[in-house]
Amino acid sequence: MAKELKELTKRSVNYSEWYNQLVVKADLAEQSDVRGCMVIKPYGYAIWEKIQRVLDDKFKETGVVNAYFPLLIPKSFLSREAEHVEGFAKECAVVTHYRLKTNESHDGVVVDPAAKLEEELIIRPTSETIIWNTYRNWIKSYRDLPVLCNQWCNVMRWEMRTRLFLRTSEFLWQEGHTAHATREEAEERARLMLRVYADVVENYLAVPVVQGVKSETERFAGALDTYTIEAMMQDGKALQSGTSHFLGQNFGRAFDVQFLNRENRPEYAWATSWGVSTRLMGALIMTHSDDNGLVLPPALAPTQVVVIPIWKTDEQLAAINAKAQGVVDGLRARGLSVKYDNDGNKRPGFKFADYELKGVPVRLVMGARDLENGTVEVMRRDTLEKVTVGLDGIEAYVEGLLKDIQRNIFEKARAFRDAHVYECDDYEDFKRRVKDGGFFLCHWDGSAETEARIKEETQATIRCVPFGYEQTPGIDMVSGRPAKCRVIIARAY
Amino acid sequence: MAKELKELTKRSVNYSEWYNQLVVKADLAEQSDVRGCMVIKPYGYAIWEKIQRVLDDKFKETGVVNAYFPLLIPKSFLSREAEHVEGFAKECAVVTHYRLKTNESHDGVVVDPAAKLEEELIIRPTSETIIWNTYRNWIKSYRDLPVLCNQWCNVMRWEMRTRLFLRTSEFLWQEGHTAHATREEAEERARLMLRVYADVVENYLAVPVVQGVKSETERFAGALDTYTIEAMMQDGKALQSGTSHFLGQNFGRAFDVQFLNRENRPEYAWATSWGVSTRLMGALIMTHSDDNGLVLPPALAPTQVVVIPIWKTDEQLAAINAKAQGVVDGLRARGLSVKYDNDGNKRPGFKFADYELKGVPVRLVMGARDLENGTVEVMRRDTLEKVTVGLDGIEAYVEGLLKDIQRNIFEKARAFRDAHVYECDDYEDFKRRVKDGGFFLCHWDGSAETEARIKEETQATIRCVPFGYEQTPGIDMVSGRPAKCRVIIARAY
Repeated sequence: MAKELKELTKRSVNYSEWYNQLVVKADLAEQSDVRGCMVIKPYGYAIWEKIQRVLDDKFKETGVVNAYFPLLIPKSFLSREAEHVEGFAKECAVVTHYRLKTNESHDGVVVDPAAKLEEELIIRPTSETIIWNTYRNWIKSYRDLPVLCNQWCNVMRWEMRTRLFLRTSEFLWQEGHTAHATREEAEERARLMLRVYADVVENYLAVPVVQGVKSETERFAGALDTYTIEAMMQDGKALQSGTSHFLGQNFGRAFDVQFLNRENRPEYAWATSWGVSTRLMGALIMTHSDDNGLVLPPALAPTQVVVIPIWKTDEQLAAINAKAQGVVDGLRARGLSVKYDNDGNKRPGFKFADYELKGVPVRLVMGARDLENGTVEVMRRDTLEKVTVGLDGIEAYVEGLLKDIQRNIFEKARAFRDAHVYECDDYEDFKRRVKDGGFFLCHWDGSAETEARIKEETQATIRCVPFGYEQTPGIDMVSGRPAKCRVIIARAY
Repeated sequence: MAKELKELTKRSVNYSEWYNQLVVKADLAEQSDVRGCMVIKPYGYAIWEKIQRVLDDKFKETGVVNAYFPLLIPKSFLSREAEHVEGFAKECAVVTHYRLKTNESHDGVVVDPAAKLEEELIIRPTSETIIWNTYRNWIKSYRDLPVLCNQWCNVMRWEMRTRLFLRTSEFLWQEGHTAHATREEAEERARLMLRVYADVVENYLAVPVVQGVKSETERFAGALDTYTIEAMMQDGKALQSGTSHFLGQNFGRAFDVQFLNRENRPEYAWATSWGVSTRLMGALIMTHSDDNGLVLPPALAPTQVVVIPIWKTDEQLAAINAKAQGVVDGLRARGLSVKYDNDGNKRPGFKFADYELKGVPVRLVMGARDLENGTVEVMRRDTLEKVTVGLDGIEAYVEGLLKDIQRNIFEKARAFRDAHVYECDDYEDFKRRVKDGGFFLCHWDGSAETEARIKEETQATIRCVPFGYEQTPGIDMVSGRPAKCRVIIARAY
């Protein structure tokens, strides 16, 4: 492992390769033998579980309940909503048969041609269609509204180029699907869920985000508005980290979900959908980690503190074990997740490198001299700073340090992000600089043509019209036409 | 709803129909438009989430970690283990293409024949193959063992006859897959997980189970031993509620998972797998519920206590609201899940029937006279008994009552089960009685022929060789041959 660690490519040499290696070396995930599908390993899954738990609790605080809808969607459902089918039919896994049979040479199995489905089924790429088909029977009156369902599940989009967590054919996510009696309520719900996402991503993943609204081109297929949170990675590229869609009555109409309103008149239900996925793992990894490995926010680290004894004799070990147990117990009593590693088969240097690679936020080392002095050496993973502190009050010290790390990595990421947000009014200047990364705040005339030209000439895309940014009208740097506001343009994952 | 409730078929009239109606009327689940796939509705899912949480915590206490493996399995993987393919290839959803395209009339989509997969992919019916294919790279030395992974996921087995929760084409489950250095350790793990299942099913679902081992015929495809927990439903039929398999080295060999043992010699890893599914919901519903609707164990009820005010005037309501709020707060402070229902649009009688249908364990009703007297009417769902008690100490009273209900429904189910377990030594007698339900303890000669004959002539199957039953040798009631032990024979779901 220590050897493997040395082989981790530096970010400055090849950021992309650094990421790919880190995900595998830190035991987060790996490619499977099924093209484009990943295996999420226990260490990676433990982080995902913590993200899930936080999100799930926050959803429920807003009245959302969980449910489960079928994995398979009849092919014809996709075609019901015109834009939706354009967006999702192109990259679907299609189930055509429901049985295998033994082959002629009796050494394998083949598809049984007799077991062909009348209508093909699609593995859900997203579930608006099957869910709104279900809602038709649930929603008859305004009294049945709102319906606020979420599901945690797997989805599949056949991707040609995949990267662990960032873009995989199968991924895990949650998808919320709500139905409302009024347009206003649905729009407010879409924005509310965006705020929930921003809260969790900033305060737990410690990843600063820009909240905003997508251009028409970048909207979800079938949405009237797509809200987004955009994070900046260390290479200055944008990572779309969560989206929330106001779907208007598009799905209500497509699946005939009508209700009697307070005036006893039939009306189509108003919809939202919103989702975050295992892609968040990519954001988490890429925002904080360094050339030594992962840096995990304490709020989501499976192990928050590792305690490592250093000894020469069995007597020393026994004495340190006894002392350390008190520290471990004290930390656990405060609800911290602590590992005590006195494995004699691994050298301390190996352990140090391994826990750095895994991103454990705080490391305590206790040697013979510490035992004498009643001290312990404390290292914080984010800055790699070491200090020796007294054992008296160590629990409060570590607890405070974890809070400080959580705050520090967020502030560090925000300072980096803020230093790479540029107002830019000159397209030539933009073209020169955009390939080095960063968020460019540029006036945009609102046309799809300009957007397409920027994308074609620079591979950069309009990420969003940012909220909370004081807008002034101006001139589009590309077309020279009047522009109502600035948008964020960046290269993106 | 009150009207619907009246229509619930009585158990004595048609037990099967009672179950089907109850699942739908109590808002637990419904059929989807995708053949054999169900929608788990929010109320049903809330119960499943609680079951998941309990199981997950118990798994982790034994060292198990969660991970995630691909949904799709290459067809050829299934054929690697000879018995496994026989068991699972026959009922698979097969993915053959990865793209749709617009049809010629531009009003729908068709499968794009150009997007045919080289090798078909199967939606996992269970994941031994894909997981052991992954373990090959994880396991090199005895130091890498044991590997103790679990995943929570969806699986699919193409079923011709489906029933909500009991048998659906897609279902949710957990599947644990462990790898060990020795046979003994693997066997102990398989038995340990059976004990975990029995613990959760008896102490949380309040469903008594018989633990035992399956006959060879009834084993999981690829297992050397299948352990099972068998519950008895109110119609006397058995419901297999969880299984744990000792797989020997079958999958280690099939996927070439070899490790260097302590003697530095290569050896195939030893395997177990174990799973419980949303079928447990069926066991929960069928064991306790009655002609009025669901009866939920307090440990898993989404709402444990409902408080309903009865009022005539707004002043009365305001006074009851104020008083009830104190009760609700006090109950919540004890960690109980409480709903206060002062909805003026529904009559009390409607509410009573609805919460009975939903199985809420305890109902408190507070009227004007209660307000005067400082009392509340308490009804327990399991026995429908009502008592009026003083508000002083109501929190402790309700808490005690919930514990009593949890205990009572388990005891009731166990008494019913015990009253329907029969030792039987006469095949003619058996044939007459088995159709009325019950577990028959019969001597069995151990042959597949006898087993097949019983199944053919009575539709009953050998459920297991029960643990904890004092065995004496005897004579097989069917074949007349010597038998080492008695097995449980019953009709089953």
